[in-house]
Amino acid sequence: MKKSLGPKTILYPAPVMVIGTYDDSGKANVMTASWGGICCSTPPCIAVSLRKATHSFGCITERQAFTVNIPSESNLVAADYFGMVSGKAEDKFKATGLTPVKSDHVDAPYIKEFPLVIECKVIKTVEIGLHTQFIGEIMDVKMDESLLHDGRPDIEKLKPVIFAPELRTYFSVGRELGKAFSMGKGK
Amino acid sequence: MKKSLGPKTILYPAPVMVIGTYDDSGKANVMTASWGGICCSTPPCIAVSLRKATHSFGCITERQAFTVNIPSESNLVAADYFGMVSGKAEDKFKATGLTPVKSDHVDAPYIKEFPLVIECKVIKTVEIGLHTQFIGEIMDVKMDESLLHDGRPDIEKLKPVIFAPELRTYFSVGRELGKAFSMGKGK
Repeated sequence: MKKSLGPKTILYPAPVMVIGTYDDSGKANVMTASWGGICCSTPPCIAVSLRKATHSFGCITERQAFTVNIPSESNLVAADYFGMVSGKAEDKFKATGLTPVKSDHVDAPYIKEFPLVIECKVIKTVEIGLHTQFIGEIMDVKMDESLLHDGRPDIEKLKPVIFAPELRTYFSVGRELGKAFSMGKGK
Repeated sequence: MKKSLGPKTILYPAPVMVIGTYDDSGKANVMTASWGGICCSTPPCIAVSLRKATHSFGCITERQAFTVNIPSESNLVAADYFGMVSGKAEDKFKATGLTPVKSDHVDAPYIKEFPLVIECKVIKTVEIGLHTQFIGEIMDVKMDESLLHDGRPDIEKLKPVIFAPELRTYFSVGRELGKAFSMGKGK
């Protein structure tokens, strides 16, 4: 028996994306967002939604670029902090001791200590409501070499994290369940 | 040391969303998509990107509505099948023995046997490239009553699944790592 929960933002899993930008003074800033995901294969694109009130919103609007930094489990305390404090008020890199690195392809910084970073150039801005969606073309993906296996991410080493909306809780990635485009064959 | 992997659609975690629609003959259809996620809090919205070539693309364009059905681990074989076969060629409900139910709020069917379903009304269509993004306002979320705890989803019972792009592999949700907007305090 299904129970109605009303119109809520419940969808599992949601990602934990730490968005890297430069502000108008050139200071590197980061904030954490979970509203978004891949939105196109060709060109490869990521959509990230931010509220206009955030410091990062102005930074992206100005520079038309951002990075998505995927935390490992060991980076989660910093990622959670990045989602609670405004870059207007605090220098979040200084507060965490993390290192901003200028991207190779876009006008935004990535976090050296985070294992997986994605450099994005804004190609579209979509007004939705409280959130505005930035569609960024993926110009490059970079990963710590030690976390690769045969040139592809080793998810057991990468240890990305999951955000559960409504529960406001983070979870790890669990065990392998099967291969996509394979386990449903012969159904 | 970071290694460049090039411009690829790598982002963890990606969701497994089974999209429910009616086609022009009124037949219920489903397909699996992983490009998307929540994109706005107010109004609550989900973005889902589909290729124009899919049968579901025409269905959503016509009816301006879709459902997002979140599979539990036990539904994963069906969800994978739904991503491999076109609704033009096969009746996917008949093939799997699953049951389409008319939504309460939108002109699209949901899957009775899937634990979490989200009814969406299209409010925006965004052309990106190979994929077109449909932004759907969430009109209602429904969940199997037995999977709720104090009126909220119990993720250990729900057992949603994760898709890992590039690896083309499904994973389970693992252990709780901490509370959001909390574990980063006092950083």
